[in-house]
Order: sequence, then C-alpha cells, then structure tokens
Amino acid sequence: MNFDEMLAVRVKEAEEILQRYLPKETGYQKRVLEAMNYSVLAGGKRLRPVLMKESYVLFGGKSQIVEPFMAALEMIHNYSLVHDDLPAMDNDEYRRGRKTTWCVYGEGMAVLAGDALLNYAFETASRAFLMVSKECSDTENPACMPDALRLYEAVGRAMRILSEKAGIYGMVGGQCADLCAEELEKEAVTGEMLLYIHKNKTAALIESAMMIGAVLANAEEEEIARMEKIAENIGIAFQIQDDILDVTSSLAVLGKATGSDEKNNKATYVSLNGLEQSCRDVERLSKEAMEALRSFPSRNEFLEQLVESLITRTK
Amino acid sequence: MNFDEMLAVRVKEAEEILQRYLPKETGYQKRVLEAMNYSVLAGGKRLRPVLMKESYVLFGGKSQIVEPFMAALEMIHNYSLVHDDLPAMDNDEYRRGRKTTWCVYGEGMAVLAGDALLNYAFETASRAFLMVSKECSDTENPACMPDALRLYEAVGRAMRILSEKAGIYGMVGGQCADLCAEELEKEAVTGEMLLYIHKNKTAALIESAMMIGAVLANAEEEEIARMEKIAENIGIAFQIQDDILDVTSSLAVLGKATGSDEKNNKATYVSLNGLEQSCRDVERLSKEAMEALRSFPSRNEFLEQLVESLITRTK
Repeated sequence: MNFDEMLAVRVKEAEEILQRYLPKETGYQKRVLEAMNYSVLAGGKRLRPVLMKESYVLFGGKSQIVEPFMAALEMIHNYSLVHDDLPAMDNDEYRRGRKTTWCVYGEGMAVLAGDALLNYAFETASRAFLMVSKECSDTENPACMPDALRLYEAVGRAMRILSEKAGIYGMVGGQCADLCAEELEKEAVTGEMLLYIHKNKTAALIESAMMIGAVLANAEEEEIARMEKIAENIGIAFQIQDDILDVTSSLAVLGKATGSDEKNNKATYVSLNGLEQSCRDVERLSKEAMEALRSFPSRNEFLEQLVESLITRTK
Repeated sequence: MNFDEMLAVRVKEAEEILQRYLPKETGYQKRVLEAMNYSVLAGGKRLRPVLMKESYVLFGGKSQIVEPFMAALEMIHNYSLVHDDLPAMDNDEYRRGRKTTWCVYGEGMAVLAGDALLNYAFETASRAFLMVSKECSDTENPACMPDALRLYEAVGRAMRILSEKAGIYGMVGGQCADLCAEELEKEAVTGEMLLYIHKNKTAALIESAMMIGAVLANAEEEEIARMEKIAENIGIAFQIQDDILDVTSSLAVLGKATGSDEKNNKATYVSLNGLEQSCRDVERLSKEAMEALRSFPSRNEFLEQLVESLITRTK
C-alpha cells in the first residue's frame, strides 16, 4: 500500500470509531443530537484522532483504550468549528461545502450543539475509566493491581491533557487572543502574540493528540515531553505554511501577492517576518520535528510520512 | 448556630474553594479569563457545591478530593447561565442585578467564556486524579493499592456522572427540549415533555451534586441510587414550586393570577395540572425526598434542613 492508501485506511478507522461513540438521534432532545451529528459527520481529515492512534502505536500501544480519546478529541475540534462559525464569531455560512450548523439549525441550537459536543467529548473520554477493569481483568487480584493502577493513572493524565490543551491554556486561549488581535491595528500585533495564537489555537490540539497517544502507551516522561515539542513544531509550521500559501497561491493564480489575509488587513506570520524568513522557519521547524520523531527507539514510518505531508503541503 | 448561620458558613466555604480554582487573569488570553470570573463571581447561592459537600459528609467523607468537583459543578452551572443569556437564546441583559456577560464583553467573547468555563470545569475536576496519590501516600506499597484503586475508580465514576448529568442525557438535553417546546403551540406541550424538561434542565445538576458526594465518600451502590432519586425529587419539586410561585405571588401582589409564564403563554406544570394538583405533587415529592434522606444509617441534619428550605420556599 502506498501512503495515500494507508492514510485512507486509518481515516476510515477513525471515522468508524467516531460513529460508534456519537449519540443516537432519539428522545425529546433529538434536535440537538441531530445538530451534533450534522456537524461532526460533515467530513474532515480526522487528522487529530489519526495522529493520536499513530502516536499510541509508535510507543507499542495495542488496546482499545485510546479509542474514546480519539473520538473525544475529534468532537472537541468540531465543537470549536460550530462555535467559530456563529454570527457572533466568524459569521460563516458554509464549511466543507455545506451550510454551517447555525444556518441549518438556528443560532440558539448551534450554541447548544457546540456545548453538547464539548461536554460529550469529556463524557466519551471518561468511558475509558470503565475499560481499565476490562484491560486488567482482575483488579481484586494483588498481582494485577500495579497494572490497573498504572492504567488508571495514565487515563487520568490523558483526561488532564485533553482538557488543558482544549481550554484557556490551550485552544480557547488562542481563540481569545485571536479575537483580541482582530480588534487591534495590524501594526500593534507582535510576533510574540502571533506565535501565542498559532501555538494555542492550532498546535494545542495536535499536542493533545500526540501526548495522549504516548501517555496511554506508557511512554517515558521524557518521551512524552518530546512528543509535545514535536507536535508544537508541527502545529506552528502548519499554520505558517497556511499564511505562506495564502500569499503564494494567490500570486500563482492572480499574478499578484494579495491573499485573503492581506485583503482583510490581518497581521500574519508572513506580513510580520517576510516570505523568505517564513519559509526558512517552516523548514527549520519541520526538520526539528522530523529528526525528533525519528529519534525514538521504535519507529512509525507512516506517522513520519503523515507529519511530512502536513508540513510540506502545497495547497 | 441557627440554620441561616450554618448555611452562610457553608456558602462561604464553597465560595473560597471556587475562588481557589478560578484562573488568574494574566496572559494574552486575559479577556476570556476576566469574562469567566465576571460571570462566576457575580454571586449566586452556590447551592450545588454545598449540596455536594453535605452529601459527601453524610456518607462520612473527610478529604479534600470533593473540592475540585464542587468547583467544577458550579462552573458548569455558570457556563449554562452565560450561554442561556445570549441574544440567540434568552436575550437577557441583566442577571443578579448586573449586566450579563455578553452585554459587558460582547457576544463572541461570551460564547468563548461559556466554552472556557465548561472546559475548565473538566480541567478542574480532573485534578482530583492528582490527589489520589496524595491521599494514598504510597501507591507502590501493595498494602495501599486497594485503597488507591478504589479511589481512582470513584474519581473516574464522579467524572462520568459530572459529564453525563451536564450533557445531552442531562442538562443540555433539557435545554434542547425547552427550546423546542417554546416553538410549539402551548397546547402541544405534554406533561411528559414538561417533566422531561424539569428533570433534565433543573434536576440533573442536583443529581450530579448529590451522587458525586456519595460516590467520593464510598457509599454503597444502593445508596447512590437513592441519592439520585432524592435529588430528582428535589429538582422537580423545586421547579414546580417555581411555576406555582409565578402564579400565586402575582395573585398576592397584583390581585389577579397573571404571572410571567401566563403572559408569555408558556406551558407550565400549573397550566397543565392545575394549582391544586401541583401543590399536592410538590408535597408528595418533598415528603418522599425527606423520608429517603432520613433513612440512611447516618444523618446530616443540616442537609435535611437545606433540602426542606429549598422545597418549601415561598419566594
């Protein structure tokens, strides 16, 4: 199988896990369940759950305990899109070629559907605690206790990572800074502020994915920290590449360097650091991430290819 | 100390715990942190954390492990208020005598502050996992392992209850049904639907409070189920009493039976079942709850008084 085929298999697997955890659309609360499923099943690359699973595999993980976390992280990613699209936020009517959730279900129901997805993410993740006693079949047996304790500890830590990286010291923090930056004059946005936004708005959920994979597979403390750094590099490089493509693709298509960011008079990594420096930074961040990923005692070639494809994409 | 003094002490304690867990207002995400704290520190009865603590005490709980859950539940209650007040939902400009969060910080920031609070609730609750090793000081020691395992299990279960009761099979479910009921003709709202709304929109977080208290104090399975039923009765009785007071207090004040619900042409428990039947139902639900609460081997007189005061309130 080539890389694209392998990717398709893994995306399909993530899709099936997600479907399994999504709610059935019945009961008096049916409408919010429909709105949740509408937004989650609108497609998407399922990048975060695939990264989590492959990180889990990299450190020798073999059980299903990673699955509720895969579904949970994708739900969190999708809740953030549902709320981002609201009229009070980005006011977007289309996403992935379909009407956005608030366009179809109304604003009030879209607020509720986003809340429902975020809440359900933690509900889904916390089912992993029920799997501990299944994994360690006899928690009453003294011989099984150390394993059960270790797994409880890992699941508890995964819960902390999931919530921290999505919250005020992660994605929500980045979203807030982004909203505030939009209110500033373009010149008032500093490089430090922009890096904070990229690190938190984009990289934090990638960090969540790769760290949780490592934690659940019982990786060493130092390895978990290395995964966090790799994911941060990937997330920031991905976002800078986005800013670069906004300029260069419009250059190629329109013959002039006027992307959507420039039109919106938005401060970007490229407007602050120039195109050349930005390209050099993507290269440096990518190189560091790839070297670190190849430095573990075990390897996951598919994960390496996936990371490479994310950073060197040209569209 | 009389009941009011004892209540004041407990509310103050809940307030201090909450303050301890709320974020410091610094960093690029400062604005969302301010909006979170603005809404949580606007006052409120702190009923849910106090109920949780007293349920914990009823079953002999003695440690601090209940505290992150107390703070988390109050955060969840407050996020629901922040989002309920939004223009797309109830469009309220005042709450507890102050401008609502969206009025002060704008709609987009209020959406984000609600998301931040909900997420931070789970972040706060998941800190309880860190307290397990503190409680069971030597998790490597085989003699301590059964205690540590039991506590991990209890904290994991408390996480599941917290998320379930707040989500689509709890509060969010009730909010959705409530939104849908508002779109229906008053006559199309059935008693079953209204009961579903009361049970989920109001009772679910009370159930969460009293069940988590019991679970963390290592109560028996049957006792936890009994606490759930007691809390359900309290929540529903509280809500029916609300509907009753809407009619009778306007009767007393205005001399005619035209409360805000009737003005809004809203289906209520009283409009469906009549005033007399509604009063009888409150009495029956309260009596059942009080009897069940007094039936445990240990008693918590303050909790009994608190529950009684909630149901028999006249304003």
